[in-house]
Amino acid sequence: MSSSSTAQQQPSPVLFFQTINAHQHTEALKAAIELEVFTAIGEGNTTVPAIAKRCQTSERGMRILCDYLTIMGMLTKQGNEYALTLDSATFLDQHSPAYLGGAVEFLCSPELLQGFRRMADAVRHGGTVIEQDGTVGPDNPIWVKFARGMAPMMMMPAQLITKLVDPDADRKLKVLDIAAGHGLFGISVAKNNPQAEIHAVDWKAVLEVAKENAQKAGVSDRYHTIEGSAFDVDFGTGYDLVLITNFLHHFDPPTNETLLRKIHAALADGGRAATLEFVPNDDRVSPPETAGFSMVMLVGTPTGDAYTFAELERMFANAGFSRSTIHALPPTFQQVVISEK
Amino acid sequence: MSSSSTAQQQPSPVLFFQTINAHQHTEALKAAIELEVFTAIGEGNTTVPAIAKRCQTSERGMRILCDYLTIMGMLTKQGNEYALTLDSATFLDQHSPAYLGGAVEFLCSPELLQGFRRMADAVRHGGTVIEQDGTVGPDNPIWVKFARGMAPMMMMPAQLITKLVDPDADRKLKVLDIAAGHGLFGISVAKNNPQAEIHAVDWKAVLEVAKENAQKAGVSDRYHTIEGSAFDVDFGTGYDLVLITNFLHHFDPPTNETLLRKIHAALADGGRAATLEFVPNDDRVSPPETAGFSMVMLVGTPTGDAYTFAELERMFANAGFSRSTIHALPPTFQQVVISEK
Repeated sequence: MSSSSTAQQQPSPVLFFQTINAHQHTEALKAAIELEVFTAIGEGNTTVPAIAKRCQTSERGMRILCDYLTIMGMLTKQGNEYALTLDSATFLDQHSPAYLGGAVEFLCSPELLQGFRRMADAVRHGGTVIEQDGTVGPDNPIWVKFARGMAPMMMMPAQLITKLVDPDADRKLKVLDIAAGHGLFGISVAKNNPQAEIHAVDWKAVLEVAKENAQKAGVSDRYHTIEGSAFDVDFGTGYDLVLITNFLHHFDPPTNETLLRKIHAALADGGRAATLEFVPNDDRVSPPETAGFSMVMLVGTPTGDAYTFAELERMFANAGFSRSTIHALPPTFQQVVISEK
Repeated sequence: MSSSSTAQQQPSPVLFFQTINAHQHTEALKAAIELEVFTAIGEGNTTVPAIAKRCQTSERGMRILCDYLTIMGMLTKQGNEYALTLDSATFLDQHSPAYLGGAVEFLCSPELLQGFRRMADAVRHGGTVIEQDGTVGPDNPIWVKFARGMAPMMMMPAQLITKLVDPDADRKLKVLDIAAGHGLFGISVAKNNPQAEIHAVDWKAVLEVAKENAQKAGVSDRYHTIEGSAFDVDFGTGYDLVLITNFLHHFDPPTNETLLRKIHAALADGGRAATLEFVPNDDRVSPPETAGFSMVMLVGTPTGDAYTFAELERMFANAGFSRSTIHALPPTFQQVVISEK
């Protein structure tokens, strides 16, 4: 006890160094994905000369990169041979069906990075300092990158949310998918329930990606699109279910309430909205992965935020919904709020 | 046991996300230092409105930043009040004598960041792709940033190395300090031993910083400077001790051997070289903080590296030194190699 409490009282600069140098990890992972290092190793190239040849790099650079990836826990090393970890084999080898490397195109897009690099200005200003309202400007091409790059990551949450909102899949379901993006949430509902008809709203260029995915999933005949901003377009009426996935965090509460009123009006009696969000606890600092999402919204949007359940509940109540409940979606870091008309 | 081993066999994308988003931590710490958030809290501003006022930012931005710093472990939060941790009070409050915030000017300088952002190119090429040989080009102004920003971090290693090389401080000591930078290593030896005379080598602009520090330490009368590249200037002879701190990692072994031969010739009989380095184990992936330094050299220099003890020992032997021994320097991540003429 006493030695441990003494140790705790020694200040250490380690966290400072790790944090100020953390960007090096991002750059190493980006470089490894760009150079196809994980794919090369998955194909059986396990030594520096073999990996360097496959990836068309210098041996010296590849040796230093592979050692760095090993230090980061993304490869293992025995003698002179490198191997994939279970995680990197699953998510970083292009031959894996769960390959996530494409997400880098969105997560490290110049648009998002620019926002982070000007964080001090965003804190001063209280919102994004990136021109044209950051990522929420009209028809921003970043959402095509999102739709293409993030789709593989959304497969699992889409299946989880489908089970939550339509477990029996035994009746007709008219579904509105707000800001559908890759379309996977609506498509998952359609695959699960042959009587579901999906109406997907998004920018025209983004809906092209969603339509491709609907085609691949074999649900094109029940996949309808509404081109434009969710704030402007006519939704129609009679929906049993409205999916609002990763959308409300981009806007302030009054803006969200305006949209939610419009959604409320489009719902049939007994209809429900299912909202997928990063919902921090009331302390706003836990759980870490969820609460930290506020910063992504500060640097990338004029007024977005990660809202607590109390805040979301209030927005839905102000828009006329009768009751909201929150549901965890393990193993993801996100939650689903189900709100009844 | 069985549930834990099952858990280990589930692939998880968590490490991928943490790593690809790691740059956000760097940006948050940079922004907080630039905005003087830690200093503001240290001065007694503990709520968002008070901190925002002191730092001249929006309240919304400051709330999100302080929450993010809390998530990162650099602040604590109780209710609506934030407090410094022991580490942030010691190293990030400008009123603390151990303030390290200035190191950001070097560690996040555009020159170094540019190298990291072009890591894939550096891996392809096998060395820095930054023009003019990266950080080791002649008279690079980055070394003035280094000398000013990194000095506070070097105080402790300088004292530790002084104790190691001159524990008794009871005899005349003619000291050559190669690439002295901030000068703290030689200055520490001079403070410890009133009979020590220091001869510091570095670029002219950098030596101005070292001379300021020698003045502050009260050792100016025993502090001499030799302006220029260590590879070119005339060292003179008769040195009892040559300090080679954080220098050899910038160059390849043949280049280092050329310099070490010159140093060997400048030493008096019985003289020693004391080399401070990041010395990884032979596996090159441990310890992590030490081994990871190779990447800094790959992206920032044409041929630099973090050398193992076996490699350093060979360079010194090839340059004529009779014996080298390695010494840990806890709590730092670095080692000292003492090489005898």
